[in-house]
Amino acid sequence: MRDQSDAVAGSRAQGALLERFRLTRDLSRDLVNGLNEADMTVQSMPDASPAKWHLAHTTWFFETFLLRDQVPGYRLFDERWPFLFNSYYEAEGARMARPERGLLTRPTVAEMLAYRDHVDEAMTAALPRLMERHGDLVEMGIQHEQQHQELLLTDIKHLFSRNPLGPAAYPAGDGAAGADVPLRWITGTEGLAEIGSDGEGFAFDNELPRHPSWLAPHALANRPVTNGEWIEFIADQGYATPSLWLSDGWDWVRREGVCTPLYWRGQGGAWEHFTLSGWQPLDPHAPVTHISFYEADAFATWAGARLPTEQEWESAAQFRDPLSGVQLDRADGVTPHAENKDGAFASLFGNVWEWTGSAYRPWPGYRPAAGAVGEYNGKFMSGQFVLKGGSCATPRGHVRASYRNFFHPHQRWQFTGLRLARSL
Amino acid sequence: MRDQSDAVAGSRAQGALLERFRLTRDLSRDLVNGLNEADMTVQSMPDASPAKWHLAHTTWFFETFLLRDQVPGYRLFDERWPFLFNSYYEAEGARMARPERGLLTRPTVAEMLAYRDHVDEAMTAALPRLMERHGDLVEMGIQHEQQHQELLLTDIKHLFSRNPLGPAAYPAGDGAAGADVPLRWITGTEGLAEIGSDGEGFAFDNELPRHPSWLAPHALANRPVTNGEWIEFIADQGYATPSLWLSDGWDWVRREGVCTPLYWRGQGGAWEHFTLSGWQPLDPHAPVTHISFYEADAFATWAGARLPTEQEWESAAQFRDPLSGVQLDRADGVTPHAENKDGAFASLFGNVWEWTGSAYRPWPGYRPAAGAVGEYNGKFMSGQFVLKGGSCATPRGHVRASYRNFFHPHQRWQFTGLRLARSL
Amino acid sequence: MRDQSDAVAGSRAQGALLERFRLTRDLSRDLVNGLNEADMTVQSMPDASPAKWHLAHTTWFFETFLLRDQVPGYRLFDERWPFLFNSYYEAEGARMARPERGLLTRPTVAEMLAYRDHVDEAMTAALPRLMERHGDLVEMGIQHEQQHQELLLTDIKHLFSRNPLGPAAYPAGDGAAGADVPLRWITGTEGLAEIGSDGEGFAFDNELPRHPSWLAPHALANRPVTNGEWIEFIADQGYATPSLWLSDGWDWVRREGVCTPLYWRGQGGAWEHFTLSGWQPLDPHAPVTHISFYEADAFATWAGARLPTEQEWESAAQFRDPLSGVQLDRADGVTPHAENKDGAFASLFGNVWEWTGSAYRPWPGYRPAAGAVGEYNGKFMSGQFVLKGGSCATPRGHVRASYRNFFHPHQRWQFTGLRLARSL
Amino acid sequence: MRDQSDAVAGSRAQGALLERFRLTRDLSRDLVNGLNEADMTVQSMPDASPAKWHLAHTTWFFETFLLRDQVPGYRLFDERWPFLFNSYYEAEGARMARPERGLLTRPTVAEMLAYRDHVDEAMTAALPRLMERHGDLVEMGIQHEQQHQELLLTDIKHLFSRNPLGPAAYPAGDGAAGADVPLRWITGTEGLAEIGSDGEGFAFDNELPRHPSWLAPHALANRPVTNGEWIEFIADQGYATPSLWLSDGWDWVRREGVCTPLYWRGQGGAWEHFTLSGWQPLDPHAPVTHISFYEADAFATWAGARLPTEQEWESAAQFRDPLSGVQLDRADGVTPHAENKDGAFASLFGNVWEWTGSAYRPWPGYRPAAGAVGEYNGKFMSGQFVLKGGSCATPRGHVRASYRNFFHPHQRWQFTGLRLARSL
Repeated sequence: MRDQSDAVAGSRAQGALLERFRLTRDLSRDLVNGLNEADMTVQSMPDASPAKWHLAHTTWFFETFLLRDQVPGYRLFDERWPFLFNSYYEAEGARMARPERGLLTRPTVAEMLAYRDHVDEAMTAALPRLMERHGDLVEMGIQHEQQHQELLLTDIKHLFSRNPLGPAAYPAGDGAAGADVPLRWITGTEGLAEIGSDGEGFAFDNELPRHPSWLAPHALANRPVTNGEWIEFIADQGYATPSLWLSDGWDWVRREGVCTPLYWRGQGGAWEHFTLSGWQPLDPHAPVTHISFYEADAFATWAGARLPTEQEWESAAQFRDPLSGVQLDRADGVTPHAENKDGAFASLFGNVWEWTGSAYRPWPGYRPAAGAVGEYNGKFMSGQFVLKGGSCATPRGHVRASYRNFFHPHQRWQFTGLRLARSL
Repeated sequence: MRDQSDAVAGSRAQGALLERFRLTRDLSRDLVNGLNEADMTVQSMPDASPAKWHLAHTTWFFETFLLRDQVPGYRLFDERWPFLFNSYYEAEGARMARPERGLLTRPTVAEMLAYRDHVDEAMTAALPRLMERHGDLVEMGIQHEQQHQELLLTDIKHLFSRNPLGPAAYPAGDGAAGADVPLRWITGTEGLAEIGSDGEGFAFDNELPRHPSWLAPHALANRPVTNGEWIEFIADQGYATPSLWLSDGWDWVRREGVCTPLYWRGQGGAWEHFTLSGWQPLDPHAPVTHISFYEADAFATWAGARLPTEQEWESAAQFRDPLSGVQLDRADGVTPHAENKDGAFASLFGNVWEWTGSAYRPWPGYRPAAGAVGEYNGKFMSGQFVLKGGSCATPRGHVRASYRNFFHPHQRWQFTGLRLARSL
Repeated sequence: MRDQSDAVAGSRAQGALLERFRLTRDLSRDLVNGLNEADMTVQSMPDASPAKWHLAHTTWFFETFLLRDQVPGYRLFDERWPFLFNSYYEAEGARMARPERGLLTRPTVAEMLAYRDHVDEAMTAALPRLMERHGDLVEMGIQHEQQHQELLLTDIKHLFSRNPLGPAAYPAGDGAAGADVPLRWITGTEGLAEIGSDGEGFAFDNELPRHPSWLAPHALANRPVTNGEWIEFIADQGYATPSLWLSDGWDWVRREGVCTPLYWRGQGGAWEHFTLSGWQPLDPHAPVTHISFYEADAFATWAGARLPTEQEWESAAQFRDPLSGVQLDRADGVTPHAENKDGAFASLFGNVWEWTGSAYRPWPGYRPAAGAVGEYNGKFMSGQFVLKGGSCATPRGHVRASYRNFFHPHQRWQFTGLRLARSL
Repeated sequence: MRDQSDAVAGSRAQGALLERFRLTRDLSRDLVNGLNEADMTVQSMPDASPAKWHLAHTTWFFETFLLRDQVPGYRLFDERWPFLFNSYYEAEGARMARPERGLLTRPTVAEMLAYRDHVDEAMTAALPRLMERHGDLVEMGIQHEQQHQELLLTDIKHLFSRNPLGPAAYPAGDGAAGADVPLRWITGTEGLAEIGSDGEGFAFDNELPRHPSWLAPHALANRPVTNGEWIEFIADQGYATPSLWLSDGWDWVRREGVCTPLYWRGQGGAWEHFTLSGWQPLDPHAPVTHISFYEADAFATWAGARLPTEQEWESAAQFRDPLSGVQLDRADGVTPHAENKDGAFASLFGNVWEWTGSAYRPWPGYRPAAGAVGEYNGKFMSGQFVLKGGSCATPRGHVRASYRNFFHPHQRWQFTGLRLARSL
C-alpha cells in the first residue's frame, strides 16, 4: 500500500509543480501585454534589463540548468543565445556585459516567445523525470522567474518614467485612498529567536541554516512609514540636514541632488508620483516607496527611531498571518512570543520591501548551493542591505518570513519602503 | 509676356521643389523598411540617434521653421513633441539630452509616421506660398533630411554591429570585387584658387563666401587608400608605432585599444568587416572606411605622405565630372587648371568621406544664417576636422565640391576614408 | 580624610593624563623626523592625507573641542585654519575637500609646529580644569591623535611607494625572519557571549553598549595567514579564479588588474615588498598584509574556511594576554571559556589589522556621542567592514578587544591581514 | 685673413651663446627663490608640473640631446632619472605618467640643483665643440628652458590660487594703474602675405617653411580687450547667453560652472584677481587674461567682431617695433604695407598671449625636426588653437612674430587674452 500511496502523493506533487510551472510561465507573458517591441527592448539604465531579456533569461535558466544539464539528448534552441542571456554565472562562461542588454533589438519578441514555447514544451515533457532528482532545481527555476517578474515591472516603470510623455504600462486601478492607520509600537521578542528557513517549503540557500540569534529589547512599528510622514520629513528640511545622514548617504544626496523619493514631483503644491499607470496623485496614507537605504536611515534618525534588524523583522513576521498581521498559534499548539500579543502588524508582506539595518551577509554555517547555481546568492554578500516582506509587485506565493532580498544602499527603483524600530 | 514666362518658370521651379520634397520624404520612409519597432528605437551610443528619432526630427524641422514660423494658423501636431525632437537649437528652448533619445519607446513608429503624414500634407498645401519667400528654407529642410538619411544608415549599422548575432539590415549586393587601380599622383593647382560655393545651387552658410586661397605646390592621389593598403599598415605595426601618430591619436589608440578600422575582425587569417548586410569578406581593392582622423593621419605619415588640405581637395574637385573624375571645361569655355590634365580622379564623390588635414573653421567673411537655423553650422567650428566628397550612404544629389562635412577626430562610425597628398 | 585622598587620586590621574597627552603629542613629532617639507605636504591619493595635515588636524581637534569650546577666553591660533584642518565634521561648518589637502604647501611645517606649541601650551595650562568635567574629551583627543599616528605612517608609506626611486622613510630593522608557526584551530565560545566594551578604560561610542550575542559553533586559527601561504594562493591561480571571489571583489580585481597584495613585486622569482624602509625581501613566515577585504574573503574561500565574525574574534580576544595569546583568569577568579584551553593565539594584537566578515554596523542600543564628536563613528556605518586587533603601526596602548576599526572592502593601504575561521 | 676673421666671429658667437646659456640657466634658479621645498614639489592639476620638475626636466633636455647623444664619454648624473624627467618623448622610452609628477618628493631640491650644476659644468666644457655641429640644438635647449620658465610661473600661480590662504610667490609691484587706451581699428594687409619664420634667428620647426598666404580684407584692434570690457560682457549676461558660444564652449561653461575668467572673484561689488603676489584689485584698463579660447570667441561674437586668424596677426606684427607697435621700415629700405600707416599697435608682444581663430596645424611643406626632438611640436597638431605675441611671463627675447604657441580651447591657466578682428 505504501508504494502505491507514495506514487499517488508523488503524482499529485508532480501535478502541482507542473501547474505552478505553467502558471508562472504564463504570468510572465501576461505581464508584457500592452508593451510594444521597443518597450520590451530598451534598457533605461545599467541596473535595469529589457522586458524581452527577462523573458529570455528566465527561459535560459530552465534550458541550461535542467534541460541541457539533466535531460539527455536535449538540443539547445540556438547555440548563440546562451551568450546573450546568461546574467552573471561565471561558471557558464562568457556573456554580454550587463549594460549592453538593451542593444539586442534582435532576436525579436516573436523569436523570444518561440524560445519560450520550445523550452516549455521540453520542460513539460521532462518534468516527471526531472521531479525524481531535480525537483529542487525546478522549484528554483520557478522562484527565479518570479523574481524576474518583479524586476520586469520595476524596469518597465523606470523606462516609462524617463519618457517625458509619461506613458502608462497598465490601466490605473480604482484609486481608492488608503486608510489612516495610527502608528503604534509592538514589542518584539527579547532573547533567543530562531532565524532562517524552518524547512517548510522552498528556501534559497541564503535563508539557511536556521540558527539561534539573540535579540535585544526592541519594538517595531505596526505599519510602514507613509507618504504623508515623508512629506513632513521633506518640509522639515530632512534632505538638507547633514546630521541626519550616514556619510555615504549625504555624499549621495549632494552628488545626485536628491530631494524627494524617486518618481515624485511637486505640481503646484500637490505631490504626484509616477506609477505603472502614469503620473498619479500621491496618497498620503499609502506606504512611502522608491526610497534608498540612505533615505530610510535618515528618516528613521529624524523620527528618533532606527531601522529594524533583519532578525527583529523576521522574528516578528514568523507565525503571523500575512494578511491580518495577527499572531498565529504554531502548528504544535504552542503560542510563542506571548509577550507580543499587543497588536497586529499591517502590511508586513506584499506592500513595500522594507529596508532593514542589516548588511547582507551569510548566516552562520551558510553553504552555497552546489554547481553554477551556487553563484545565485552567496557572491553578492558585500555592499548590500537586506530587505524583507515583499512588495505589491512581488508574485503571490513568493514571499516568506525568512526571505532575504538585497540591494545596494543607493538603489531605489524597486518598491522599497521602511518600518521604524526602537531599542527599548 | 515677361510676367507670364516668369510665372511659368516659377511654377516649374515649384513643381521641381515639391517633387524633390516628396522624393526625399519618401526615401526616409523607404530606408526603414525591414527594421522593426525596436531596431528603430534603440540608441547604441550617444553619437548615434534612433532611426525613429531621425524620422521625427527631420519632420520637426519642417514643422518648426516653416509651418509654425511661416504658415499662419498652423497648429502643432503635438505640443509636447518639440521637446522630444529638437536636436541642438538653443534658440528653440529646452529639449531632451542627446544620450536619452533612445528612451523614447513612445511615441511609436506608427505615431511618427502619422506625424510625417500630417506635416507632409501641410507642407504640400503651403509650398506654393512658401516658395515665394522661403524657398531657401524649404531647400535647407530637404538637405537637412538628406543628411539625416545618411546618419540613419550609419546609426543602424552601428547598432547592428554591437549585436553579437550580427544581423543584416538590408540584403547584400552582388559582391563584385573592386578593380585594382594603381596609385598615381595628380599635380594640383598652385597659387590662387577660388574656394567656397560659386552660388550655383544650394549651399549651406558654411560654404560661403567664395574667396581666394593660395595653394602651395602639391599633388593628390588619384584614388582613396584601399583596404589592401591598410592591411599592409597593420602588418607593418602601424597601430603599435607611436612615432606615426599625433599625440592625441596615440592616447586614443592606447585608451581604446584600437588595432583595426571600426567593424573589422580577423577570422582565421582572413579579414571580415561588418556591413549593413552583416559580416562580409573584405575587398582589398575597395577604399578603406570607418577610420578616424587620427588613423588617417597616422597612415599618411607611414606612407610618407600627408592628408590634403580642404582647399587642395576642393580645388581638385571643382570642374570635375563626379563619376569619371575627368577635368571638365568650364561653362564659359575656359579650361582651367591646364596643368592638371595629367589624369582622372577616381571616387572623388560618393564612395567615402575623405578626411582632410583642415580643422573646421569659418571661411573669411563667414556669417551664420539668420534666426535659429544660424545654429546649424557655425557653432560647431571647434574641435572638428573637415571631410569632403560624400560616401556610398550620401543621398544622390547631396554632394558638391564646396560641401563641408565635419566630425571629431576620434569619430569613425561614418563612412570615412582618406586620399593621400604630397607637398611638392 | 576622604576628600584629601580623593584629591591625591585626582591629582595622580591628572598627572597621568597630562603625561599621556605629552607623550602622544611628542610621538607625532618624532614620526616626522627624517621627512622633508615636501614629504610632509604631498597627498598621494584621496584616501591619504599629508603628514603635515595630520599634525595640524590632531591639533585642531584639541583646539576646537577643548580649548575653543571649554576654555573661556581662548583665542584661535589662526581664524582661517579651521577651514583647512577640519576633516569631516559637518557641524563644524565648511572645510576643504578631502582630495585637496595636498595643495597646502602653506602653512609651512614650521608654522604647523608653532601651532602645536601654541595648543600644547594652552592645553597644559587648562588640563587640571578640563579634567574635572571633560576628561573623556581629552582622552578622546589622545586616542584620536593615536589613530592619526597610524594613518600618518600608512600615508607616508603609500607616498613613498609611488616614487620610482623607492625611498626609505626610516632605517630598516634587523630583519630577523619570523618563525614558522604551524596552523592550528582553536575552538571558540559557543552560545552567549558578552560583546562590547566592559567599561574598563576608554572606549569609543561604537564599542558600546556591551550586550549579549549568540555565537554558533566555530574555531579560529591560532595565527594570521602568512606571506608564504599567500604565495601558494597566487600560484594556485587565486587571482584568476572567479568562483573564489565575491562579485564586487571580482569586478575590482579585473578593473584594477590586481594580482598580488599591495606593495608586492616579483623580482626574478623572489618576492619583494615595499616597506617604510624601502623595498625588502618578503618573509614567508610573517603575516600577509596590505590586502583588501575582497582578497581576504577570496583567500578564506580558497582555503576552505571563512573570515571570523567580529563577535567571534572579540570573544576569543577577551581575557587573553595580548603578547602570549594565552587565556587569562578573570579578575573575579572565574576561568571563563574552559573549553578554550586548547591553545594560545599568536599575534592577536599589534601585528596586522584582521578583516572580519562583519559589516560595520551599530551595536544594539548604540547612541552616538553628544555634540560634533557624535560624527566620529556613527555616520560611517555603511559600506565598510570591521577589522580587529591592531597592527605594527598602531601606537602601544591603543588597542583592546572591543576596538572596532573599519575600512571599505577595497582599501588596502592600511596594515591589513586576516585570520581564518571555520564553522563547526 | 678670412679664416682668422671667421674664427673671431665664431668665437664671439660661441661666447654669446655661452652667455645666453648661463643667463637662462641662472634665471630658472632665480625664479624659485622664495619657494619652499613643498611649493616646488606639489602638482596642483595634471596640466601643471612642479617647479622642481621644471628645473630637472630642462636639465634632462640638455643632458639627453646634447651631452648623452653628442659628447663621447659623458656619464649620466643618475641612470634612474631619465624615467622621472622625460616629458613626452616616446622615442626616449618609458616615463612617469604626467599626473604623477607631483609624487616626487625625492629627489630633493638640493639634489636637483646638484644635477643642474653637474650638467651646466659639462655643457660649459663641451659648448665650444658642440657649437660646431649642434649649435641649433643648444639654442633649442635654451628656448625650451625659456618655455618652461613661463610654465613654472603659471603653474606656481595655479598652485597658490588653490590655497585658501592665497599666498604670494613674489612681492607685488607698485600697482600703477594702466592707461585707458581707446579702441581703434587698424586695417591689415590684403592679399598675399609671407608667413612663417624669415630665417633670421632661431625658429622652431613649426614656424617653417615661410610661405605665401592670401589674406582677406580685415582690420585688427589696436590693443587687447581689457578687464573693464570683460566686466561689461559679464554684466550683459555673456556667460548665460548660449547664442554667443561655440557648442563645445557652451557645454564647457555649463559643465564647469564658468562665470568669470580664471582667478577672478567678486568681493562686495569690486573685482579682485589672484596674482603671483596674491589677491589684488582688478585694473579695468589692463588686458583681460586667463580666459579660454571659448571665452575669447564668445566675447568677440558679443562684440560684433571675431578673433584674428594667425596669419592676420602675424602679418600685422611683422616689421613692427615690439614696444611702440609702430610700423618699421624694412631692412631693404622698402616700406611695406603702406596702407597700414593708420596707427600703432599696443601690446602686441609681452602682455598676454592672444588667442587666434586658427587651429594649430602645420604650415604647407612642414617637416618635423629629425630625431627625438621631432616630437617637440608636430605631434600636437590636433585639437589646439594658436596664440601669438607672448605674455608678461614670457622671458625677454623669446618672442617673435612667427612664434606659434598653442593650447587646448578650454585651457586658461596661461596668461591668455584676446585682440578683436573684423572682416571688411
